[in-house]
Amino acid sequence: MKLATIRTLEGRTRAVRVDDDHLVDLGAADLGEFLATSGWEERAAAATGHVAEVRGAAYAPVVPRPGKVVCVGLNYRNHILEMGRDLPEYPTLFSKYADTLVGANDDIVKPPETDEFDWECELAVVIGAPVRRARGVEAERAIAGFAVLNDITCRDWQFRTREWLQGKNWEATTPLGPYLVTPDELPGGVRPTLEVSTRIDGETVQKDTTGDLLFDPVALVEYVSTMITLRPGDVIATGTPGGVGHARKPARYLSAGQVVTTEIAGLGRCENTVVDDLTAAEVSS
Amino acid sequence: MKLATIRTLEGRTRAVRVDDDHLVDLGAADLGEFLATSGWEERAAAATGHVAEVRGAAYAPVVPRPGKVVCVGLNYRNHILEMGRDLPEYPTLFSKYADTLVGANDDIVKPPETDEFDWECELAVVIGAPVRRARGVEAERAIAGFAVLNDITCRDWQFRTREWLQGKNWEATTPLGPYLVTPDELPGGVRPTLEVSTRIDGETVQKDTTGDLLFDPVALVEYVSTMITLRPGDVIATGTPGGVGHARKPARYLSAGQVVTTEIAGLGRCENTVVDDLTAAEVSS
Repeated sequence: MKLATIRTLEGRTRAVRVDDDHLVDLGAADLGEFLATSGWEERAAAATGHVAEVRGAAYAPVVPRPGKVVCVGLNYRNHILEMGRDLPEYPTLFSKYADTLVGANDDIVKPPETDEFDWECELAVVIGAPVRRARGVEAERAIAGFAVLNDITCRDWQFRTREWLQGKNWEATTPLGPYLVTPDELPGGVRPTLEVSTRIDGETVQKDTTGDLLFDPVALVEYVSTMITLRPGDVIATGTPGGVGHARKPARYLSAGQVVTTEIAGLGRCENTVVDDLTAAEVSS
Repeated sequence: MKLATIRTLEGRTRAVRVDDDHLVDLGAADLGEFLATSGWEERAAAATGHVAEVRGAAYAPVVPRPGKVVCVGLNYRNHILEMGRDLPEYPTLFSKYADTLVGANDDIVKPPETDEFDWECELAVVIGAPVRRARGVEAERAIAGFAVLNDITCRDWQFRTREWLQGKNWEATTPLGPYLVTPDELPGGVRPTLEVSTRIDGETVQKDTTGDLLFDPVALVEYVSTMITLRPGDVIATGTPGGVGHARKPARYLSAGQVVTTEIAGLGRCENTVVDDLTAAEVSS
């Protein structure tokens, strides 16, 4: 099953099931609200209200206002080893605020305050049940599904201090979409093995497989829920493989007019145009 | 004016004005919701509905579900210098999730997974208007008021990786309260000069003044809002002075049964008992 949050012509959002050629309304304002209702999986499968053609659907972020977006640093085995580092014992975690999120085809807003605007294609886990200290099957069942997240980063701000938050939390920079795909539709299920890739104006700059994740989605649900309750609609971004702009020689960064495509096989793709933040035109860096 | 969120006997919450001897209902479910309505300051001053005696009021976190809790690392000048570090050019920022918050007199829940449970008394800024790239007077006006926050930290988890998030985000560990005090009632206004202190079972372990902050509340609103819109109810925790348990020789940590009092002159105090997490009794570390 594919589930999404779409924007309506009235400027609101609706949770929908995405079928081959049309969208089916799920009776909730967005997917976060829908996942918080009991029996959502059965109700999503049984829903019948036709909404609209898939063609031209305006995707909002899959979950527009998650209570938590937990992000993982270094998590692709090959990439860690090629950087000459040891495999870490624990996942490195940081956070994004909900105001960073945009939909799968929205513009990515480049602030004038950065000169190092970079891409990071990631497998995003969306939580479908409240869990604390989940282990094994309970952690597996807490995963509603997966989507694509582009963890756009201002590298200059990321490395201003030792904590990464300020490089990772710029408004309207982080595509999350287009839809959530439930684990039963994916090879590997809750530990899916899927090709991850990023293209800039059609040129491939990242390509790897989620099978290379050091901490897989279930392990991450177990780890994060040790600390705090994961709730329906919460998102875990599982980290990015090699090929980001900052690590290239010479380094490359995004500029206005470029189109960034982040794609995960089976999960669809986010295709976003980088635009300058015109509301900040008079602000100097 | 003092404003708070209290718990009702029906298990809900209400936004209230805290007068000398009674609470006045503000017509909203919590202070986050109230601060998001236009003209909140005038309406709070004019409200007349009597609710209850102050004695025995059960304080919820001042804002129970802030969209953002932005925390600042190293920010007390004397403490940075005494540690032999240079004053930083930029604030170090990290994040707490709303599920970490508890009220001013709630228990602090110590998880069995940590052996290094530490205190950090902080001045918390509560936002009262949406702002992006605010400067000067606009940043000053975006500050609704101030409260006490105890940024309880699992040091062993904080230093597992280079990012601090996992030491800072344990459920039901972070008192925020008891109430918000508007800047007009404080010496220094939006840049208040107030004594900050922490006591463990009555013994003073932290004592400093917010006048020593390197990045003051207005500077922090300017800095954070450069990246992202600050919204009503968002919280900025401004960092802690010297005297935390981890920096002592020998180091000291909190254990069940201890009472931690974090107090800021003019803002009241949080007084919380540390309790073991009995729901996790069977979980090993």
